[in-house]
Amino acid sequence: MNPRQFRLEDLARLVQGEYVGQSDLILEGLASLDVAQAKHIAFVNADKYLDHARASKAGALIVTAALKSQLDTHNNFIIVDNPYLAFAILTHVFEKKHTQQGIESTAQIHSSAIVADSAYIGHYVVIGENCVVGDETVIQSQVKIDDDVEIGKQCFIDSHVTLTGETKVGDRVRIHANTVIGGEGFGFAPYQGKWNRIAQLGSVKIGNDVRIGSNCSIDRGALDDTILEDGVIIDNLVQIAHNVKIGANTALAAKCGIAGSTTIGKNCVFAGAVGVVGHINITDNVTITGMSMVTKNISEAGSYSSGTPMLESLHWKRAAVRFKQLADVPLTQLVKRLDHIQAQIESLESTFKRK
Amino acid sequence: MNPRQFRLEDLARLVQGEYVGQSDLILEGLASLDVAQAKHIAFVNADKYLDHARASKAGALIVTAALKSQLDTHNNFIIVDNPYLAFAILTHVFEKKHTQQGIESTAQIHSSAIVADSAYIGHYVVIGENCVVGDETVIQSQVKIDDDVEIGKQCFIDSHVTLTGETKVGDRVRIHANTVIGGEGFGFAPYQGKWNRIAQLGSVKIGNDVRIGSNCSIDRGALDDTILEDGVIIDNLVQIAHNVKIGANTALAAKCGIAGSTTIGKNCVFAGAVGVVGHINITDNVTITGMSMVTKNISEAGSYSSGTPMLESLHWKRAAVRFKQLADVPLTQLVKRLDHIQAQIESLESTFKRK
Amino acid sequence: MNPRQFRLEDLARLVQGEYVGQSDLILEGLASLDVAQAKHIAFVNADKYLDHARASKAGALIVTAALKSQLDTHNNFIIVDNPYLAFAILTHVFEKKHTQQGIESTAQIHSSAIVADSAYIGHYVVIGENCVVGDETVIQSQVKIDDDVEIGKQCFIDSHVTLTGETKVGDRVRIHANTVIGGEGFGFAPYQGKWNRIAQLGSVKIGNDVRIGSNCSIDRGALDDTILEDGVIIDNLVQIAHNVKIGANTALAAKCGIAGSTTIGKNCVFAGAVGVVGHINITDNVTITGMSMVTKNISEAGSYSSGTPMLESLHWKRAAVRFKQLADVPLTQLVKRLDHIQAQIESLESTFKRK
Repeated sequence: MNPRQFRLEDLARLVQGEYVGQSDLILEGLASLDVAQAKHIAFVNADKYLDHARASKAGALIVTAALKSQLDTHNNFIIVDNPYLAFAILTHVFEKKHTQQGIESTAQIHSSAIVADSAYIGHYVVIGENCVVGDETVIQSQVKIDDDVEIGKQCFIDSHVTLTGETKVGDRVRIHANTVIGGEGFGFAPYQGKWNRIAQLGSVKIGNDVRIGSNCSIDRGALDDTILEDGVIIDNLVQIAHNVKIGANTALAAKCGIAGSTTIGKNCVFAGAVGVVGHINITDNVTITGMSMVTKNISEAGSYSSGTPMLESLHWKRAAVRFKQLADVPLTQLVKRLDHIQAQIESLESTFKRK
Repeated sequence: MNPRQFRLEDLARLVQGEYVGQSDLILEGLASLDVAQAKHIAFVNADKYLDHARASKAGALIVTAALKSQLDTHNNFIIVDNPYLAFAILTHVFEKKHTQQGIESTAQIHSSAIVADSAYIGHYVVIGENCVVGDETVIQSQVKIDDDVEIGKQCFIDSHVTLTGETKVGDRVRIHANTVIGGEGFGFAPYQGKWNRIAQLGSVKIGNDVRIGSNCSIDRGALDDTILEDGVIIDNLVQIAHNVKIGANTALAAKCGIAGSTTIGKNCVFAGAVGVVGHINITDNVTITGMSMVTKNISEAGSYSSGTPMLESLHWKRAAVRFKQLADVPLTQLVKRLDHIQAQIESLESTFKRK
Repeated sequence: MNPRQFRLEDLARLVQGEYVGQSDLILEGLASLDVAQAKHIAFVNADKYLDHARASKAGALIVTAALKSQLDTHNNFIIVDNPYLAFAILTHVFEKKHTQQGIESTAQIHSSAIVADSAYIGHYVVIGENCVVGDETVIQSQVKIDDDVEIGKQCFIDSHVTLTGETKVGDRVRIHANTVIGGEGFGFAPYQGKWNRIAQLGSVKIGNDVRIGSNCSIDRGALDDTILEDGVIIDNLVQIAHNVKIGANTALAAKCGIAGSTTIGKNCVFAGAVGVVGHINITDNVTITGMSMVTKNISEAGSYSSGTPMLESLHWKRAAVRFKQLADVPLTQLVKRLDHIQAQIESLESTFKRK
């Protein structure tokens, strides 16, 4: 594998930055400040990393002008307003790209499916009736694309993904390995002590520029569709139940679970393992901290939390016992009673003194 | 794809209901009240949906007699006692069915395996020694059925499922994509600072009419078996550890986790992300609310909860600090002390007045 | 399938124990005390199981000398210091072993990959460029091994595992079905209301004797690597984010989630569904109880917890309301105020008496 090689000047141009130092310095990769060698470029994003930066063996540093003025240990820089964004852009330069096109001989593609010439279909992929795969989309090996699924252009679908339930996927969508989209929603009508399965007839609609991690489950709707709007990003092991709607550019960290028919607004950020009950509405610009349980509508933007802080286990046990007792302790009354008693005592004292 | 078409009269007969209106009205699908068009039939399940029903463009409505008497906006109805159940039944009428039988040419099936003629085995399925696949069972593409696994009749096993650990599956069982059943239990004997693997020799026994979602992990037993009784329904991303037993018709919502050797009774309902420790017993007819942590036996039917309610994050931080303090605040004593002080004051006051 | 058969004497030798009774007693399997028949050997690990042991139909028992002296119901024993460890060792004797070697005809292996002659590669496995598979390693069917992945010797990789991101795996590593290792980390630079993907350039390094359950997601690092040291054991449905480091012999139970760039020490034990935020350090020998949320560094070995105990739901609702109120109840002040009031009353009383 030949490492990619770039000149400092060229990297600066790619991030619309200004280079300082040797224009033709050859750089072969990005690295963190601690690990970087002379062939690497690293980035510095805040004053608190200046000591690390000074000690770094990186051949060049991506910095702001203000940070550069505090670094006399290095000679080669790219100066930008937002080093983290510049770093994000350069990761794509050094990334190993999938360049293959065409269909591997072992892929099983139904004759009614339409696959773009510029798409790549890996080994042992199975594609059903009436499917569509758009231009420059990469379908890695062993993916299952069930009947009536449509995938836009420039998507990346990693191995062992299952797309079913007539799912429709937009453009530039990335779905990581072993995720299931369009599986049957968990719908049952209880009757005479048994669960009667409700066949799920809705689908999943995924917008453009959506990113879904590995081992996620996103169920098809019962009648209407489950919907992920443009720019939604989802981490690994996330559960999205039937008929959930997630607004544009909302981010869900790993292990979140959203129960059925809940609507989440745009630009929300849910930290890891957040759970949301079904049939509620969460407005735009809501942040939920990790492992919180959301059981009610949220109609005001802001940050919300639940849970208890971590304690040493013996300390926790004592607090936990008290949590049980809280049910029968009228806390707010306690304060009022104290105020009342205080007043009684003061009255007694003053009367007493007057005598 | 030809849409399925049904006459109103015929749909009424399928749900043992009575039709009102045009007997030969053609209906092509089920839809929710809000989305339905003239070709759709929708259902109304309670008075609170009457406004939606009146505004709906649905060609026909499934209702109770009492609901119908309040709807003069529509002409075509199916009248039943339980509209939700009728809807559940009709979903099967409009569902796209898998009708293929036989074995795809690319399936790898060991010569000792027995596959019913009426079963379907998809592309790139691998079936090991001594396996059995029953009548009319559908095994979707890329499934792995390891040695000594047996599957009953009329089952549906979706793509990328792994069945191993000599798992035995009953009839009419549905297992959704990418689920793993019979994987090795997490059993290790700690010795001299290392974990010594305990090879798992038990299996998994799954009854009839069981439903398991996508991306679940259900481990084989250590010595005895892990058991799911008839009618158990399980949502996505659920963990069932070795030697767990789950009673008939119990429902586990997404992201639940049941630790090893725990026994759960019949007809229980666990909401999403409930966690249960190992080696405990939970009786029949127990409901656990979402994200609760179960650490002790439950011997009384009823509903159980843990966790804290969601708060605005700054409010939550103040409450969380107080939770820590609770450990050292003798709550129930506080109330007693207040009562005692109150008595003292009253005694002082009365003595004082008498003087 | 012929059951394996062993003489009592031979089993005793395998666990470095002493047999008592009939040296040539034939045993065909391990079983739990309750289920065992005459052909089985069972183990007794503590006094509390003596009644079960006395009632057991097991042909032989693995016990300590002290336990044996209390068992006159049986004639055949293996006497060891640690019956649980002896049991763990014997599970390997009775386990059905994978003995096949070689490459199934349907495996797709890139010409640049190196596969040991003694390895087994199952049906429909796909192996990319520059991969290495070591001696006696078993790769089950339908596994995906992406470019530049290296796997050591005597590993076991179950079906539908995806290994990507240039992951490097040590020796004697077991990875259970449908797990994804080396998937892209969840890294995005927010800019002008959109999420800019950061291509992940680091890898995953897995030491020797590591065990990873089914349906896990272990992401590749952003720049540096995600690291699991030797002897780490991980249960099912666990999330390990990019750049996490886990120290030797640490155990994570099912459904744990570790956010990005967190470092966990050696010999830790995390119970099920523990969540750990990103960018923190946890020292060696830390135990975290189930479903706890870890949001801060832990620098002292010990046991830590969070959450609230389970209560009957109506009881819980009352306690939960009080949890909200806690934010505005100055708990520690309450106690001080009570002490102060008590002093005032005592002063009043004594003054009063003096009058």
